[in-house]
Amino acid sequence: MNILYPKNLCVALVIAITSLCSLTTKAQEQKSTWIWYPGDFEIWLSNDMQNRRTERGTFFPPFWRMDSHYVLVEFHKVFNLTEPEDIEIFAEGRYNVKINGKMVSGYPKKLTIPAGQQKINIKIHNQGHVPALYIKGKTIKTDNTWLVTFEDKEWIDETGKASDQSGTTYVKAGTWNFNTPDNKPSAFKLATRPQEAINTEKKGNQQVIDFGKNTFGFVKLHQLKGKGKIQIYYGESKEEALGTKTCETFDIFDINNVSAKDSVLELSKAFRYVNIVTDPEVSIAKVSMLYEYLPMKDRGRFTSSDAELNKIWDVSKYTMELTTREFFIDGIKRDRWIWSGDAYQSYLMNYYLGFDSESVKRTTLALRGKEPTMSHINTIMDYTFYWFLGIYDYYLYTGDKEFIELAYPKMQSLMEFCLQRRNKDGLMQGLSGDWIFIDWADGLSKKGEVSFEQLLLCRSLETMALCADILKDQKAKDFYSAEAKSLKSKIFNYYWNESKQAFAHSRIDGKQTDNVTRYTNMFAIFFDYLNAQQKQGVKQNVLLNDNIQKIMTPYMRFYELEALCAMGEQNYVMKEMKDYWGGMLKLGATTFWEEYNPAKSGAEHYTMYGREFGKSLCHSWGASPIYLLGKYYLGVRPTAPGYENYTIEPHLGGLKWMQGSIPTPKGEIELYVSTSEIKVKSPVGTGTLKINNKKKPVCKDATIKTVGKNQYELQVEKGREYLVKL
Amino acid sequence: MNILYPKNLCVALVIAITSLCSLTTKAQEQKSTWIWYPGDFEIWLSNDMQNRRTERGTFFPPFWRMDSHYVLVEFHKVFNLTEPEDIEIFAEGRYNVKINGKMVSGYPKKLTIPAGQQKINIKIHNQGHVPALYIKGKTIKTDNTWLVTFEDKEWIDETGKASDQSGTTYVKAGTWNFNTPDNKPSAFKLATRPQEAINTEKKGNQQVIDFGKNTFGFVKLHQLKGKGKIQIYYGESKEEALGTKTCETFDIFDINNVSAKDSVLELSKAFRYVNIVTDPEVSIAKVSMLYEYLPMKDRGRFTSSDAELNKIWDVSKYTMELTTREFFIDGIKRDRWIWSGDAYQSYLMNYYLGFDSESVKRTTLALRGKEPTMSHINTIMDYTFYWFLGIYDYYLYTGDKEFIELAYPKMQSLMEFCLQRRNKDGLMQGLSGDWIFIDWADGLSKKGEVSFEQLLLCRSLETMALCADILKDQKAKDFYSAEAKSLKSKIFNYYWNESKQAFAHSRIDGKQTDNVTRYTNMFAIFFDYLNAQQKQGVKQNVLLNDNIQKIMTPYMRFYELEALCAMGEQNYVMKEMKDYWGGMLKLGATTFWEEYNPAKSGAEHYTMYGREFGKSLCHSWGASPIYLLGKYYLGVRPTAPGYENYTIEPHLGGLKWMQGSIPTPKGEIELYVSTSEIKVKSPVGTGTLKINNKKKPVCKDATIKTVGKNQYELQVEKGREYLVKL
Repeated sequence: MNILYPKNLCVALVIAITSLCSLTTKAQEQKSTWIWYPGDFEIWLSNDMQNRRTERGTFFPPFWRMDSHYVLVEFHKVFNLTEPEDIEIFAEGRYNVKINGKMVSGYPKKLTIPAGQQKINIKIHNQGHVPALYIKGKTIKTDNTWLVTFEDKEWIDETGKASDQSGTTYVKAGTWNFNTPDNKPSAFKLATRPQEAINTEKKGNQQVIDFGKNTFGFVKLHQLKGKGKIQIYYGESKEEALGTKTCETFDIFDINNVSAKDSVLELSKAFRYVNIVTDPEVSIAKVSMLYEYLPMKDRGRFTSSDAELNKIWDVSKYTMELTTREFFIDGIKRDRWIWSGDAYQSYLMNYYLGFDSESVKRTTLALRGKEPTMSHINTIMDYTFYWFLGIYDYYLYTGDKEFIELAYPKMQSLMEFCLQRRNKDGLMQGLSGDWIFIDWADGLSKKGEVSFEQLLLCRSLETMALCADILKDQKAKDFYSAEAKSLKSKIFNYYWNESKQAFAHSRIDGKQTDNVTRYTNMFAIFFDYLNAQQKQGVKQNVLLNDNIQKIMTPYMRFYELEALCAMGEQNYVMKEMKDYWGGMLKLGATTFWEEYNPAKSGAEHYTMYGREFGKSLCHSWGASPIYLLGKYYLGVRPTAPGYENYTIEPHLGGLKWMQGSIPTPKGEIELYVSTSEIKVKSPVGTGTLKINNKKKPVCKDATIKTVGKNQYELQVEKGREYLVKL
Repeated sequence: MNILYPKNLCVALVIAITSLCSLTTKAQEQKSTWIWYPGDFEIWLSNDMQNRRTERGTFFPPFWRMDSHYVLVEFHKVFNLTEPEDIEIFAEGRYNVKINGKMVSGYPKKLTIPAGQQKINIKIHNQGHVPALYIKGKTIKTDNTWLVTFEDKEWIDETGKASDQSGTTYVKAGTWNFNTPDNKPSAFKLATRPQEAINTEKKGNQQVIDFGKNTFGFVKLHQLKGKGKIQIYYGESKEEALGTKTCETFDIFDINNVSAKDSVLELSKAFRYVNIVTDPEVSIAKVSMLYEYLPMKDRGRFTSSDAELNKIWDVSKYTMELTTREFFIDGIKRDRWIWSGDAYQSYLMNYYLGFDSESVKRTTLALRGKEPTMSHINTIMDYTFYWFLGIYDYYLYTGDKEFIELAYPKMQSLMEFCLQRRNKDGLMQGLSGDWIFIDWADGLSKKGEVSFEQLLLCRSLETMALCADILKDQKAKDFYSAEAKSLKSKIFNYYWNESKQAFAHSRIDGKQTDNVTRYTNMFAIFFDYLNAQQKQGVKQNVLLNDNIQKIMTPYMRFYELEALCAMGEQNYVMKEMKDYWGGMLKLGATTFWEEYNPAKSGAEHYTMYGREFGKSLCHSWGASPIYLLGKYYLGVRPTAPGYENYTIEPHLGGLKWMQGSIPTPKGEIELYVSTSEIKVKSPVGTGTLKINNKKKPVCKDATIKTVGKNQYELQVEKGREYLVKL
């Protein structure tokens, strides 16, 4: 079987990357790691990242509330030592140490803990950074089994006796990949590597440097010398770099270097082109850059018989690489903020690419922030709901109950916030301060009770019921299930239009509006809320109907194409993908865009928000082919949490062959599909390979069941390889 | 009239101190001042202060949640300029500037604002310190009329148009006394001044330095030279400084100074004695200190014919001076935390001493912290209620409605927290995590529904109704009034014991317990919840009954003596004051203590919490004579907010004469009272001088009304002087 990636290469890659990235392997669980109050590092880091945005040299922060870490936290764990043990203590902040309730003098860096049962408590204060702890001993190590709180309520009475009923809530400590004492959370930086330009055009005191593709990092000025001003204009397009009056980002500063020295700019920026204008007395020998990135394992792969499609997948992957950073961000040039709707799509693509669960968790925690809940996530109602949906998917793909346990109280309070904002009909409508976003679409009405928001709320309630069930909170499960059911029936009563065979866009003053848009209709398909007849109605009357307002953003294209795929329209979607993403490639795109309208031409493509270069040319939501190709062409998706069960339902969609790797929590499912054969090997759970073929396929490795006309199934067990002849 | 303090001296004092302290004068309102999100500087500073505690060299932080400032805030104000105006901008943090919605490029430090209506928005991000702003222009100045928010929700649509319905809540900016660009909030430090020791005993490599009285500050080692260890043991008593194994605080460090240099220790400490032990090669030429203090105007005064009483008042004042710092703290040696119950008494004493409203507001805001409300203030149920009571008094003494407006939402949510924790009988009982403190008293039961807590809740509800009324929130006023009324009737039904003519201590399992304690009974007197007969019952059966458990802390002595004073027992209380506080003075106290039990002797007095020197010898709650002498002997108290109306009801309590100044928002009421005459002059409102005298007094300055047997009244108008012959 030579279709699978050579084993040796895979292993070598894993070894090379493990030390840099965030794998949760058994080996790591046994090592010490820096710990903190869960969510606090994420909030702190997201503040740092999101406040790095500049627009034309001006600081440009978010417009929602930014929370902070708890400045004073207590960590503890009980150990049973068979012999005395020496430990080393590293803390970020002022700290104290108690052993079995007895305070140790000063700020001990090394201690010998006696044999026997020993409770270690450490309290740390840090205002500017996250209080964090690292302990190294033979058996005593900091990891996520330590408990932590932000108020231990350890008061004493007048005799010095501590309270015996503190009522304190302890949670498991947060961790990531800070596995050595020197690798402090407060000093977190993404990795960098040098990258050279491919072309430089010099003209007088101006030089325009081309890095060959859209990229992200720190411009490096080699052998910088002289006295005077340096102006650096960044461009995702050459037009932008040259458009000094309208480009989105620049750096302007003065130097006075008697002797030449290399200089790396402070803030990383997005660009393909850099336009540098200097005063006459300033000289620069060369311009290069430090590419800045999150080290991540290379897991999901896709190649096929179609070179353009392969390019689409590769550029999508690169787009995702650029936007998967401290967190999943929207785009690299402009916001660099964490937007819940954008992140939600990044999660889904990530499951078919790096399967980096740490990035999903970090982003989820950062988005949620802290109590009190006073606004929607990013102030956007739909973005609140995507946050719930992200957790639904996270559990399905990873089976990680521990994270559900951590997130559940935050989910409950956010849902409570939503439910309290319903109107008298039990529907959600934009209240003062609520942004109803849905999509960037000309003239899209946000008035009244928009059906799309109710649909997302319904799915969010189902997510709540699911999580309540996982955590055995039966009462809550019943409550959320009942609310979901009741809302679902309202959605059909209020919005489903029998004559149009479609959901209406909204209700105003209690009356269904005339308008039909794609959003609610397409989501209802892959939420599986419609029966077969309704689905066909939606497909014909909405999805394939050119009279319905078209979608212009890759953001909503994502869902539109997913809905079509979910209805078996892979051939149609293949054509759409090649047209739409292929269209961007034909225009020279090296990363995929925030918005693409084929009707525009030239530099028109770069405008948005009324600004000449307002559009982001590397936007995570542009990378959806990764998701579509993995889930609906290779056709792999979990049906039980963590891929304990899953289906493989390949659709060539017109391709001669395709092959790929689909990451799971336990390794990659390797798959090759052609018109004549299917090869599969899985490291996880039990899969069902579903084959639609004119004749019954042949497989010597397993029994093939006939399940319908031209419908066959084959059970895939982990660790075995299957070759199916069609 | 020579009894009043010489006018010239008063004025001189005011002038000398104004520049240092926190007066809200008209002149200051017109100056620029640093502004921030209200409460944020207070929270940040309280974190800083409260995490400075060490115990025997070990970091000793609070055990309740510490909140943080908002890291990203937006300030704005609209100006109408008749001509263009140059402004200078100073910000603590990264910032941007918008003029009439248009972003200004970069980080402008100077700008010219055009004539016309101009809205200035400035957004600042700062993680480690409080985002703060200072703008200096001819008419454009930062002050508390600027509005501020932590989420402006200024999103834009795809055309770049900003949202027109943000739903953002703006509040008035917070300020204090940071009135120059260089005087940054983040660099706040208390003032210091050099102070010399009065005695040094040297013996070998040890020297014990006596500063003559308990004090607070930074030890300064002059001409420190050599190599080796320095051990500094601090003592509020000589025994403590010498008790190197048990003293509460010390500093131990190594030096290696080739040439001699002066060295000031990093953390300020409380001490009268400093015991310094050095390695042989270390030499110190001299030891002095930098006394650390909050500059405050000297306003309240008291002297009398009794020298011991005058000493008590002076030592009380010094005790208050030491514990009135960044905030009103409990004591100087140990906690240095902000305890709501302790602070509440400091507020009351402050109204008869410095009348420093800024300190009251800072402390109130710091105590409340931020949402979500998950625990009682300092985790103590009674301390939550004192927080409400503090606001009641603050309004009565200052008439400051603006602060009520700021505090009201925080009051509402804290009250909501309390009301939700009531049991099925509508009473508050200690739930898991609630500390029922009441007092340090041996064996005091906290079980069941303690009557004292219900009484404080009732007064807190009355405070809510009062504030709702001030802010014209009629619905809330009705609600809180009804709750207060209902609870008051429960308090009488459940706890008042007719046969004992007293309130019972508690109810357990729905049944009144046998125990009677002083707490509920004495508070009910000065809350004026009892009729005349009930008051007499309480007085005889509780207050003057030696079989009822005695109070050992000056904390509760405060209220016990207040209750007796409120019933006209000034002669009795005078004796008690001289016994109790005089008792401490006889033991050499230079500041008043956390607890005093006359039955103990020698160094026994210094023990507490099971620790040899656990007791704080300078505790704010030890200074209550200031309050009692001002309110119940000089007899001055407001009866309408801000002293618009007030009474003066002097009681000599056995003294031959007394004289004093009582601060009000508009200056000091000056009063002299002897057995033969009363002199009074007031700068504020309308006062009623109440005189109890065997014959009708004579006053040529006003009409004296007879209001009962031996009861006379005289109306005091502001700005006039009155001499009454008795």
